[in-house]
Amino acid sequence: MTARHRIAVIAGDGIGQEVVPAAVRCLDAVAERHDIAFDWHHLDWGSDHYRAHGRMMPVDGLDILAGHDAIFLGAVGVPDIPDVHTLWGLLIPIRRAFAQYINLRPVRTLPGVPSPVFSRDPIDLVIVRENNEGEYSEVGGRVYQGSADEIAIQESVFTRRGVERVARYAAALAAGRRGHLTSATKSNGIVHTMPFWDEVVRDVLADFPDVTARQELVDALAASLVLHPERYDVIVASNLFGDILSDLAGAVAGSIGCAPSANLNPPGEHPSMFEPVHGSAPDIAGQGIANPIGQIWSGAMMLDALGHAAAAAQLITAFEAALASGTRTRDIGGTATTAEVAAAVVAHLGP
Amino acid sequence: MTARHRIAVIAGDGIGQEVVPAAVRCLDAVAERHDIAFDWHHLDWGSDHYRAHGRMMPVDGLDILAGHDAIFLGAVGVPDIPDVHTLWGLLIPIRRAFAQYINLRPVRTLPGVPSPVFSRDPIDLVIVRENNEGEYSEVGGRVYQGSADEIAIQESVFTRRGVERVARYAAALAAGRRGHLTSATKSNGIVHTMPFWDEVVRDVLADFPDVTARQELVDALAASLVLHPERYDVIVASNLFGDILSDLAGAVAGSIGCAPSANLNPPGEHPSMFEPVHGSAPDIAGQGIANPIGQIWSGAMMLDALGHAAAAAQLITAFEAALASGTRTRDIGGTATTAEVAAAVVAHLGP
Ligand SMILES: CC(C)[C@H](C(=O)O)[C@@H](O)C(=O)O
Ligand SMILES: CC(C)[C@H](C(=O)O)[C@@H](O)C(=O)O
Repeated sequence: MTARHRIAVIAGDGIGQEVVPAAVRCLDAVAERHDIAFDWHHLDWGSDHYRAHGRMMPVDGLDILAGHDAIFLGAVGVPDIPDVHTLWGLLIPIRRAFAQYINLRPVRTLPGVPSPVFSRDPIDLVIVRENNEGEYSEVGGRVYQGSADEIAIQESVFTRRGVERVARYAAALAAGRRGHLTSATKSNGIVHTMPFWDEVVRDVLADFPDVTARQELVDALAASLVLHPERYDVIVASNLFGDILSDLAGAVAGSIGCAPSANLNPPGEHPSMFEPVHGSAPDIAGQGIANPIGQIWSGAMMLDALGHAAAAAQLITAFEAALASGTRTRDIGGTATTAEVAAAVVAHLGP
Repeated sequence: MTARHRIAVIAGDGIGQEVVPAAVRCLDAVAERHDIAFDWHHLDWGSDHYRAHGRMMPVDGLDILAGHDAIFLGAVGVPDIPDVHTLWGLLIPIRRAFAQYINLRPVRTLPGVPSPVFSRDPIDLVIVRENNEGEYSEVGGRVYQGSADEIAIQESVFTRRGVERVARYAAALAAGRRGHLTSATKSNGIVHTMPFWDEVVRDVLADFPDVTARQELVDALAASLVLHPERYDVIVASNLFGDILSDLAGAVAGSIGCAPSANLNPPGEHPSMFEPVHGSAPDIAGQGIANPIGQIWSGAMMLDALGHAAAAAQLITAFEAALASGTRTRDIGGTATTAEVAAAVVAHLGP
């Protein structure tokens, strides 16, 4: 029997409009081979919607999304609208409204994609980023605005429940992989929240005797990801640290354009959201040269989360084969267009 | 006439006890050649002091330091005492009490020190880190401690005065170098303080029409430092972002062990403090193999800040020559001991 999934698609801004159609094409192709049918529901939300209506999405946007099995997002953000409006008007509210408290960011050496660092062994790590709280918050504000005495205050808010569930997810993931967990901290400089983070992570680890865990200061960890990326297995990090470390690790592995992410609601009570790590890249938008691999790989993560592990694996194998065969966009040393990469991925799916 | 300087020396913990004497030896040697006399005042503060007296430094520690022309610090921190005690009991109070609001961290390709990244052109950048406020604060705390409902809150506090002075310092520095300034931000995720940071930086830049400035999101900037480190000239960053980016840039240039820093009070009303970027490295402490270059280079920055630019330049030339000649510690691919590196630097000072 055909498995049907209703997917909300927000291509969004910039290259989102190019890489999302490319990925949808690949997803339809692999779906067909596995008796899966995607019901794509395209939503024209984003910065154009903001310009027209003063909002990134309609007032009932979250209700609309709630009726879907998953959300497939391209990118949001444009040079002429402050990011605080575009991101806090769409991306971050979705992550929070649907309790997508896990942001999963695998980073791997890909065939034919050269790494900018000298690394003997292939990189194969996953960053588990806390996605709902921490340093990203709307709590805070300013006093003496516009004057020489102006002060801006920002509150980071960490809850035991929030840290516990991300630590638990990361430890379980590590247990099913190579058994190593690294916790990013800054308990020597950030006095209140980071020692708390360390404590909660330590408590959770008591339930995972087979996982070897260590905590590393985020500054040293950033340096170490450049020097020894192959040493890492699973890294658990706060919202901000996970953000920085995942871009960094993506670059170390050879391309931010290939890096995928899943914003997961693990209990499955709400839709999860799948989006590449890269942004809307206004500098190359509209030229058809954007790298669609990050979006396609995010699509594979969506397949996996929807229960189609075999289809996900087939799609990953296909894009790896396409990369290995030399069909690559400019950012990773090739000359192919976005559409050519998608076509090569489909071709490598086989009959 | 001999220039005399009274220097407070806190070798501190771990390898601080090894690299500080090595650097003092080099500083004395270069001082002699420039009619400078250092009056070293050794203070046995640090974690042993904490174990004995429950404090990292005496109650009147800051008063003692105030009577000096500069502070020369090794490292603080040990595995068995929480960093919050060791760092907030010594390092951070000194930075704040003496309004050392600039943390200057030059990063350069050094002769004979291989970079772990493929980079065509040499790296020559300076990170100007805000050093007194921002994400590092003692404001905040916890509620429902120990319970499942526990919440930890941390306040980042940014003042217009604080951001303005670091931005101004960085812009002036850029004007005297290649004229490029990059401001690290996260105004798309951190809602209150980072848009404020951007505004204040923009206001300051109005006074520097010859400086080309751009702001980069800290996640993208971290990635870009791996891909194109040679593109950067001066980077201005908040306390936390500067911390992460400077370790990262040090690693990209080939060694954290070589990276120096100056905690400056630019008006010169209080002593400034000079310390390497690396920490106390308990894993290699006591073996005599620690890299002293970060400490020696920090000493050169101290010479420069004390008005001895020629002596500073001679010391830098000497350690570059020592490195080029192959006298290097293990962390940068050599076999030399800490003492051998110091001896080589002294030898390269010439007669
Ligand atoms: C030890 C720690 C508190 C300190 C900091 O984060 O400022 C260190 O990493 C540094 O960079 O000087
Ligand atoms: C756009 C921005 C708010 C976002 C984040 O920081 O979470 C992005 O960088 C990401 O990593 O998804």
